[in-house]
Amino acid sequence: MSVTQVAAYAAPAPKAPLERTTVPRRPVGAHDVLIDIKFAGICHSDIHQVTDGWGEGIYPMVPGHEIAGVITEVGPEVTKFAVGDRVGVGCFVDSCRECEQCLAGQEQFCAKGMTGTYNSLDRNGEPTYGGYSTHVVVDENYTVRIPDALPLDVAAPLLCAGITLYSPLKHWQAGPGKQVAIVGLGGLGHMGVKLAHALGAEVTVLSQTLRKQEDGLKLGADHFYATSDEATFKELAGRFDLIVSTVSAPLPFDAYLGLLKVDGALVNVGAPEEPVSLNLFSVIGGRKTLAGSMIGGIAETQEMLDFCAEHGLGADIEVIRAEEVNEAYVRVQSGDVRYRFVIDTSTI
Amino acid sequence: MSVTQVAAYAAPAPKAPLERTTVPRRPVGAHDVLIDIKFAGICHSDIHQVTDGWGEGIYPMVPGHEIAGVITEVGPEVTKFAVGDRVGVGCFVDSCRECEQCLAGQEQFCAKGMTGTYNSLDRNGEPTYGGYSTHVVVDENYTVRIPDALPLDVAAPLLCAGITLYSPLKHWQAGPGKQVAIVGLGGLGHMGVKLAHALGAEVTVLSQTLRKQEDGLKLGADHFYATSDEATFKELAGRFDLIVSTVSAPLPFDAYLGLLKVDGALVNVGAPEEPVSLNLFSVIGGRKTLAGSMIGGIAETQEMLDFCAEHGLGADIEVIRAEEVNEAYVRVQSGDVRYRFVIDTSTI
Repeated sequence: MSVTQVAAYAAPAPKAPLERTTVPRRPVGAHDVLIDIKFAGICHSDIHQVTDGWGEGIYPMVPGHEIAGVITEVGPEVTKFAVGDRVGVGCFVDSCRECEQCLAGQEQFCAKGMTGTYNSLDRNGEPTYGGYSTHVVVDENYTVRIPDALPLDVAAPLLCAGITLYSPLKHWQAGPGKQVAIVGLGGLGHMGVKLAHALGAEVTVLSQTLRKQEDGLKLGADHFYATSDEATFKELAGRFDLIVSTVSAPLPFDAYLGLLKVDGALVNVGAPEEPVSLNLFSVIGGRKTLAGSMIGGIAETQEMLDFCAEHGLGADIEVIRAEEVNEAYVRVQSGDVRYRFVIDTSTI
Repeated sequence: MSVTQVAAYAAPAPKAPLERTTVPRRPVGAHDVLIDIKFAGICHSDIHQVTDGWGEGIYPMVPGHEIAGVITEVGPEVTKFAVGDRVGVGCFVDSCRECEQCLAGQEQFCAKGMTGTYNSLDRNGEPTYGGYSTHVVVDENYTVRIPDALPLDVAAPLLCAGITLYSPLKHWQAGPGKQVAIVGLGGLGHMGVKLAHALGAEVTVLSQTLRKQEDGLKLGADHFYATSDEATFKELAGRFDLIVSTVSAPLPFDAYLGLLKVDGALVNVGAPEEPVSLNLFSVIGGRKTLAGSMIGGIAETQEMLDFCAEHGLGADIEVIRAEEVNEAYVRVQSGDVRYRFVIDTSTI
């Protein structure tokens, strides 16, 4: 039960390419599970953090918070899982467990701050390392079960991209009779289309061009519009109950708010680093909401995985070998992936 | 039953001082009531419109959408009111009556646009003239009853200032156990404090300085903080379920959003004409809402008046003679009124 070195892909310094290395994993504690990682999704935020776009990065940095694997060891007091269980780990691996939010199952909003799966310090002050690795040790309470019906490779991206869309769709009640728009058809957006459709909403994709129209309709969208066409904003005025924006470019918010019905909500799960601007009259006339949402809690993540299993939903992925990760990053940055890269961690 | 000329105070042209004149009132139609106006509140938006701050003003302009009076004549098909009834008229006097919003009692969001009480064209294309006048003819369906317990002078401002605050406080569920902040202690804000307190919430005033602290506490606030003091934003971080901003200056929104709890809402009922800016991460971390609200529907306005009567709430007012209106406008613009001017229309 001592610290173990495991293989991983890490960025040794800000903006440096990722390279193979080893990182320490803590001993399996009383409530821990040891996970043999099988697949790790590549999230756009991995690239932000590796390049230190958000600042205060901890190096070497092993990205990866879309982890799917199989348990190979459990601590003596683990009750929820057993060796052989198929499990996932998302964006955080601990939280204070005491605050109002933790007690409400919204650990992502922990008052003391959640412990990120990587690029974070755990409760003992040790750096955390993510899923681009062969193994990880995680507290059972921050581990979720991947239903048998979901292949591990398409399940991995659900741990971030899936829950990031599922949570606001549920919170703002996407469902039968509701008009939902998804802005941006990338890793997040394609899950938004699948999930909103499975929830029973009428789904519209708002994409810069019609380039991905065929894909969007196949994914479950009922309509597809180009936002580069000004006519879109006239035709769809007042149409939507809910718009979920997955893009990190600053949108012309007044135009997008004009697409909402009275009492409609425009929810951002993507965001530019710089401030955005809007005219408040765009929310006052029609009692509209501009809001944000960030991943989801552990219980909700489990609910999402169960929902995906029930509806046969996984991410559309391109599986890569670990040594292709730097090339994959370049392709993610140019939007050249349909719709999520997943690292086969057996190649590390 | 022909068009009647009635005395009024009107701005003959943009930015011109108001002066005594006469304007036409339509014959009392089948569903109309003729109201002998007793008091008319002065709303900040009257000044915006008289000075053509929003453009497209119709002149001569008789402002006034906080009207309290007594019915002196009813049309033959009127069923809701009788001669002698004490009634009020707010910001609109008609709407399409057919759209989803009208049918839901949210006429203020009528899909075809409500007919403003003044500076608007009615369904026949005739200009509407507001409450700075001796009489007005209004459809009974856009008239509300002022309970006997409410004096007409303190009731007049409830028709705009009252409902503008009551509606978001109800919609965002201000009540026992909730922490509510009111930004700005003017005509709108002072009603916000009274209403939020009466609804059972714990109320905090956020004002630029502590100058009005004594007033705020008397009005029902539990706490009073100066926003010019940076310590306020540290001390109150994460405190509020709901913040209602009544100010028309652009706020530092990221700082104000930082005062909200997870799932909290910052609702604007005042707004600057220019765009505002915020960082979307301020709403993403904590699933927060930036929203707007605009007056309320007819049924909700009646509910608000009944609530005010039950709790003994009226506006804090300074009654003026009609010839003092231009001077009052200057004082409103410099914030020199506690908290609403009301014109005694018998002086017109």
